[in-house]
Amino acid sequence: MAGSCHSCGSCEQSLENYCPKLIFTYNSRDADGTRTQGGYSDTIVVNEHFVVRYPENLPLDKGAPLLCAGITVYSPMKQFGLNQPGMHLGVVGLGGLGHVAVKFGKAFGMRVTVISTSPKKEKEAIEQLGADAFLVSSNPEQMKAAMGTMDGIINTVAADHALAPLILLLKVHGKMVMIGVPEKPLALPVFPLLMGGRILAGSLIGGMKETQEMIEFAGKHNITADIELIPADYVNRAMERLAKGDVRYRFVIDVGNTLKSA
Amino acid sequence: MAGSCHSCGSCEQSLENYCPKLIFTYNSRDADGTRTQGGYSDTIVVNEHFVVRYPENLPLDKGAPLLCAGITVYSPMKQFGLNQPGMHLGVVGLGGLGHVAVKFGKAFGMRVTVISTSPKKEKEAIEQLGADAFLVSSNPEQMKAAMGTMDGIINTVAADHALAPLILLLKVHGKMVMIGVPEKPLALPVFPLLMGGRILAGSLIGGMKETQEMIEFAGKHNITADIELIPADYVNRAMERLAKGDVRYRFVIDVGNTLKSA
Repeated sequence: MAGSCHSCGSCEQSLENYCPKLIFTYNSRDADGTRTQGGYSDTIVVNEHFVVRYPENLPLDKGAPLLCAGITVYSPMKQFGLNQPGMHLGVVGLGGLGHVAVKFGKAFGMRVTVISTSPKKEKEAIEQLGADAFLVSSNPEQMKAAMGTMDGIINTVAADHALAPLILLLKVHGKMVMIGVPEKPLALPVFPLLMGGRILAGSLIGGMKETQEMIEFAGKHNITADIELIPADYVNRAMERLAKGDVRYRFVIDVGNTLKSA
Repeated sequence: MAGSCHSCGSCEQSLENYCPKLIFTYNSRDADGTRTQGGYSDTIVVNEHFVVRYPENLPLDKGAPLLCAGITVYSPMKQFGLNQPGMHLGVVGLGGLGHVAVKFGKAFGMRVTVISTSPKKEKEAIEQLGADAFLVSSNPEQMKAAMGTMDGIINTVAADHALAPLILLLKVHGKMVMIGVPEKPLALPVFPLLMGGRILAGSLIGGMKETQEMIEFAGKHNITADIELIPADYVNRAMERLAKGDVRYRFVIDVGNTLKSA
């Protein structure tokens, strides 16, 4: 995000992300009436309130996707108290958001279980990302055995999917936070929410104060995203690969060709 | 409810209502293997843990529906912090649960707005029940004008209905608690939850400690349900009227014909 009103209740609490006059970095109407065009350039003029101090020990390329993937997973963990050592956290979907959620979850000292439709992601989830367990969401026995065991779930899935089997993984008063945006409404069976006083919430990026806090936490715990560094002239090919989900897990564009590939 | 395991995590916190071995008052398998048959009798044997001390100042007939309608609305208000003076509470649906939710909301010192499909209920909501405002959910202008104004909503509707217009009534971090159980899944548009970090939760009756607290609060604030007292031989006719929604707001059966009609 690149701007907000600075005077509403949300802005006063540094929840600029929920300001009704929020200006997104891309394709938003800016204060001067022009359209915002993102950061794909050598230089950019920004309002200082929307700049964060970047930890010196983090590489620029691997750290770049933490804004927004990092804050998008960190903010709900913080806001909903899903950051306590010993808690059991579920992460649904292992993509750009999910793989970072696993890293933050482990850094908070939680037991982290990845829930995915793809059995072939198990090895990577556990061996590369440090997840403690892996559930294939289409395997009813696995899902049943894990029922009622999770304090919280970060749900990153933007495709249509069944909510009930995920809600049932939660303990009494457990919370599932949606951070992916499915195009169409999801089917919500209400009874699994009632049984157990469970909570379903939404979360959208995070506020500036929390974003600064997140990047400092990432610096301290050496959390970065797994990326593929590409030159600017690769973007059309990258868009084609993105459409197929063929990236682990984020493309980062080296606009000025000043970085070495990771 | 009439029984629970007394040893699980939920029972230990007096959240017997979320015990996996919860025994419902009706048609549940009791500890001795028989089916529970409810309380429609002159005498009944119950486990003392599931008995509450009834305030002397409350009439038996009008107070009876507080178990469960009273605890069903009181528990989510308490658990989700929707009981603070000055807060703005929405109550969706004005029936057996909704009319009691309005009374508890007012007793907590909140501003209460009823949201209903029936414009004809406005007079009763405001003049009889003390609601501060009334919104007709099918009136887009009214709903739009109230967007982002509510700290919480108690949603009592068991029929299919649109969630997005209700979610949008909530402030940032506002909470809507579902206590009705629609037969089929509801359509949940995820984006309105994300915009504003809003929360959708479920709640089912309440624990025994909280039930005792609720009935004492009701006694102190003279909260009772609006009822129609009927003799036992009226039950078949009452069932027909219930099916048509023709009751304000609860039938209470005078099993022994010992009470005078209200």
